[in-house]
Amino acid sequence: MKTQEIKVTFQPSGRTVYVLPGTRMLEAAGRAGIILQTPCGGQGTCGKCRVRVVSGEFTAQNGHAGNISARQVKQGHCLACQATILSAAVIDVPPESMFEHQQQILEFDTGERGGLNPAFSKIFFELPPPSITDTRADLARLRDAVGAVHMAPEFVKMIPGFLRRNGWKGTAVLSDGVLMGLEPGNTARRMFGTAFDIGTTTVVGTLFDLSDGRELAVSSRLNPQIAHGDDVISRIMRVRADAAALDELQDLIIGAVNQIIVAMAQHAGVAVQEIYDITLAGNSTMQQLLCGYDPSALGEVPFIQAFDRAQVISASRLGINANLGAQVYVFSQIGSFVGGDTVSGMLASRLDKWDKPVLLVDIGTNGEIVLAANGQMRATSAAAGPAFEGARITNGMRATAGAIDKVLFKDDVVLNVIGDVKPVGLCGTAVIDAVAELLRTEILDSTGRIQSAGDVPARLPAALRRRLVTAANGETNFLLADAAETGTGEPVYLWQKDVREVQLATGAIRAAIQILLQRSGVAAEDLDAVLLAGAFGNFIRRNNARRIGLLPMIPCKRIRFIGNAASLGAKMALLSSDERRYAEKLAAACEHVDLSLDPEFQNEFAMAMMFPDTSLDHCE
Amino acid sequence: MKTQEIKVTFQPSGRTVYVLPGTRMLEAAGRAGIILQTPCGGQGTCGKCRVRVVSGEFTAQNGHAGNISARQVKQGHCLACQATILSAAVIDVPPESMFEHQQQILEFDTGERGGLNPAFSKIFFELPPPSITDTRADLARLRDAVGAVHMAPEFVKMIPGFLRRNGWKGTAVLSDGVLMGLEPGNTARRMFGTAFDIGTTTVVGTLFDLSDGRELAVSSRLNPQIAHGDDVISRIMRVRADAAALDELQDLIIGAVNQIIVAMAQHAGVAVQEIYDITLAGNSTMQQLLCGYDPSALGEVPFIQAFDRAQVISASRLGINANLGAQVYVFSQIGSFVGGDTVSGMLASRLDKWDKPVLLVDIGTNGEIVLAANGQMRATSAAAGPAFEGARITNGMRATAGAIDKVLFKDDVVLNVIGDVKPVGLCGTAVIDAVAELLRTEILDSTGRIQSAGDVPARLPAALRRRLVTAANGETNFLLADAAETGTGEPVYLWQKDVREVQLATGAIRAAIQILLQRSGVAAEDLDAVLLAGAFGNFIRRNNARRIGLLPMIPCKRIRFIGNAASLGAKMALLSSDERRYAEKLAAACEHVDLSLDPEFQNEFAMAMMFPDTSLDHCE
Repeated sequence: MKTQEIKVTFQPSGRTVYVLPGTRMLEAAGRAGIILQTPCGGQGTCGKCRVRVVSGEFTAQNGHAGNISARQVKQGHCLACQATILSAAVIDVPPESMFEHQQQILEFDTGERGGLNPAFSKIFFELPPPSITDTRADLARLRDAVGAVHMAPEFVKMIPGFLRRNGWKGTAVLSDGVLMGLEPGNTARRMFGTAFDIGTTTVVGTLFDLSDGRELAVSSRLNPQIAHGDDVISRIMRVRADAAALDELQDLIIGAVNQIIVAMAQHAGVAVQEIYDITLAGNSTMQQLLCGYDPSALGEVPFIQAFDRAQVISASRLGINANLGAQVYVFSQIGSFVGGDTVSGMLASRLDKWDKPVLLVDIGTNGEIVLAANGQMRATSAAAGPAFEGARITNGMRATAGAIDKVLFKDDVVLNVIGDVKPVGLCGTAVIDAVAELLRTEILDSTGRIQSAGDVPARLPAALRRRLVTAANGETNFLLADAAETGTGEPVYLWQKDVREVQLATGAIRAAIQILLQRSGVAAEDLDAVLLAGAFGNFIRRNNARRIGLLPMIPCKRIRFIGNAASLGAKMALLSSDERRYAEKLAAACEHVDLSLDPEFQNEFAMAMMFPDTSLDHCE
Repeated sequence: MKTQEIKVTFQPSGRTVYVLPGTRMLEAAGRAGIILQTPCGGQGTCGKCRVRVVSGEFTAQNGHAGNISARQVKQGHCLACQATILSAAVIDVPPESMFEHQQQILEFDTGERGGLNPAFSKIFFELPPPSITDTRADLARLRDAVGAVHMAPEFVKMIPGFLRRNGWKGTAVLSDGVLMGLEPGNTARRMFGTAFDIGTTTVVGTLFDLSDGRELAVSSRLNPQIAHGDDVISRIMRVRADAAALDELQDLIIGAVNQIIVAMAQHAGVAVQEIYDITLAGNSTMQQLLCGYDPSALGEVPFIQAFDRAQVISASRLGINANLGAQVYVFSQIGSFVGGDTVSGMLASRLDKWDKPVLLVDIGTNGEIVLAANGQMRATSAAAGPAFEGARITNGMRATAGAIDKVLFKDDVVLNVIGDVKPVGLCGTAVIDAVAELLRTEILDSTGRIQSAGDVPARLPAALRRRLVTAANGETNFLLADAAETGTGEPVYLWQKDVREVQLATGAIRAAIQILLQRSGVAAEDLDAVLLAGAFGNFIRRNNARRIGLLPMIPCKRIRFIGNAASLGAKMALLSSDERRYAEKLAAACEHVDLSLDPEFQNEFAMAMMFPDTSLDHCE
């Protein structure tokens, strides 16, 4: 897959990502950590996400809302939400299109934010050489100047020679009172670090200048472990089947991390040896595989993590390409499948600082849900399955060119397709849209059954009714695109059994949310906010997610997209040790609610398989 | 040299040492850490050091004081101070002959002694297996049982597999809240440690059971670095000449340490993997060579140590044969040539607990002197040269068979020779004796000139007068043994130039003591005690050492032999972390007085070259 990826660089930040041709520009920007203004929800109606393509091929469905001029189109302007990238491209992002994402997140901060306080520091020193009136030991002389409390024996060994060769001058690298390195000359200003979001599918790194907190580069790669399975369970099972696979999977992810580090370092004109600190957030399986900790116990009841508290590991021990003294900080984990990415997201969203109940939801193959209410945090995870990623849906696919990503019912079905191509299949957001619209039109009943053409309400437009096709097994499926309209020459349906998959996926998330609410004695309507984190959360249509029961039936304005909170948390932890302590405090304070064999959950799950029967169905 | 060494085992302790044939039994016992009663100073007059040779050849000059019966002699009894060992031997030490050495040292203790509180501890744990109601992470489960605050990533990696393979049971090895190892089954009672005294000449190790503080074995070896020179300076110069020699010298000393560990472990029925903790005291050069820290800067003005604070190094990193998680504790150093052995001796003698001024003196090639007075400790070292070890003395030799070790002037010279052989040369104690007697008889004047036969006092016995032989260069030398009386057929003299060597050696020590007394505003007569540490200190005759000016002119009873204080301190630090902290506190509180280029010292040194002109010359 990697060879198909194309390089997309965003100006002026210089952030670079690798994506598949046909990826929506908005998504590519998001993967580069650039969140654009999308008050219309990426519908192409507000015109706020305008960018300019400096070089590269793309397709765009601009101007149907009349908010971009012909002259602008000629100059390469387009709406990122309506454009897809076809080849390697350079894209200019004007400041007015930027969503002040970090700022929005950080405004949750109630003043405890540590600012720039990295774990590593550098001190340039010039020592008085020894003399007959000053016979301090070499270590004492250095310590008196740089204040390191601990010097590891391997450095002590170097110190006498270093000081004499370099005229008693140099730069000390320190971490938390420990000497981590000695460098000739004054290199105090050259100190860099990287924050990583290690996803099951995608790995994103960001390079920072730790001397001033500036972000220098972003780079991402597919997680090469994908060759061993799409989801965490298949990778765990791989290790359970063959113990040697642990090293192999670790090597793959370390390899991707190293590629990203090298790419970012080259882009920013930084030597990899100048990278001292690395933070890393991922789900528990990704974190354990990266650390080389056997994840086998995550593959069977009762799903046990190897570690809970944050791990600090020498980068060189892990084989990560960085300074010899560099350290890797791996986030704390809460329990079972509530891992470091959730903790990192809790950090970024300051989950304990909200006065009123707040729910953090990250929807993926595995949904992680954290409820903060009444001074207590509870976290759980629910196996949603891959339906929202387009898998296990008969005509499902990832959100790339040819994917229907939006479905709207008017007199007939209105589809949006990624890329200027004929539709090939459905991605996760379109599945949610379609199910929501089917519910609204009462084609789908609350048990999840698609009515046959004869049973639907009489007021249903004829064009929609004609799309109901009852198969030989008696099940009715909904035709979204005729064979003649598609790129494959095969029709695209939402099948009855796809609806069952959606019921399972939403049911699991909804039941998990329900249990957390019950345990905390909070009603859904008391939620001050539902924070949607993760890639999927940012493309979902809130009213539709609510309609199918994936999210609680609260006013849409309380459902907030917070982008890639895990990645943001990793960055915050890179820039400040205080943030690390804060994240560790959050993880330790959060109760893990294990639903895997909870009979109460089984009950809620059964009930949540029914779609909500509700009249409150417009987004406030 | 090693092949010539013979094995001597002392009963009932089972302590074993390797010595050269002809070594005095008293010295061999001392090297095994067994200090015998010697109220007469090893003169063979008190009969308190009686031992019984169970097997092995020896010579003894017993009974000339009539304190051992013929029947006892037949049974193998002898006085250790008068006997020399000729072959591998087993020697029984009756309890009444033991000097309660440790007890005497430790009575200085004012109550702060930590008792048994080793740095390592072991906890046997039985964990509840994970269940759906207890999904703690593996680390949390273990931590909750054993309380380790820190688990190094390399152990975290092992933990999931270890716990599952061993049915959630095992023994955790902990050091200061850090997990250092995991062992199957209950091994909590199997925890051993070794204390080492790393001398320039000799390496002595002692094996302890850390679970109850029992001493299990003692073993010693010559320091194999001797092949690269007798003294520290020649070894430093070796490294300065060839950087690769650092590794070579480190390998040699580590090799000796490993041999000693293996020998002790075999003797005590302990596996080397059951040794977790190692303490090690040596002079600064020995400590640095063992740690692999370049000692080159100790080889030139202003004589700089690599480190000051105690070093803790992984045994496996050093290549020391012990448990994989074992650590080596290397004592703090004070400055230049005041190293870890001095700190260890300060610890053993509780130097800061004395109410009145006290002087700690360790005389060797390098003399280390510490004065504690008025709440302040000051330490210095003086290069005495090898005169006291018999080197640079024309007919000098080490204290082995054939060495004259005692000289007494009556009507004629009375000599004591080690072993039942003809004399071959002089060892250090005899040099001091001879010079002291020459001063008493006024054959030697205070400038250090041996008078010619014509210039000596008329009352001098004729036999002594006849021994004054004036050479062609006008210098007069003193004949100790005629060619006909010696083992070599060559006469043994104390030469005029030997006296000059003694003047240099004693002058350096005396001037150093003088400077410390001056800096502290203390007069010599105010000294409550002079504590003589080290091997040489234990064989010296106090009144003679005083007469030649090596020690201050204070009553002999205030001059106390404290045996191998460095070794004792290393043992105390092995048995208790509190002792380590105490030693570190002592080292940090002690001021280093550097005399190397101090003009005041040069002045004192010049004055101290004159022998004291004193009438107070009998040992009270």
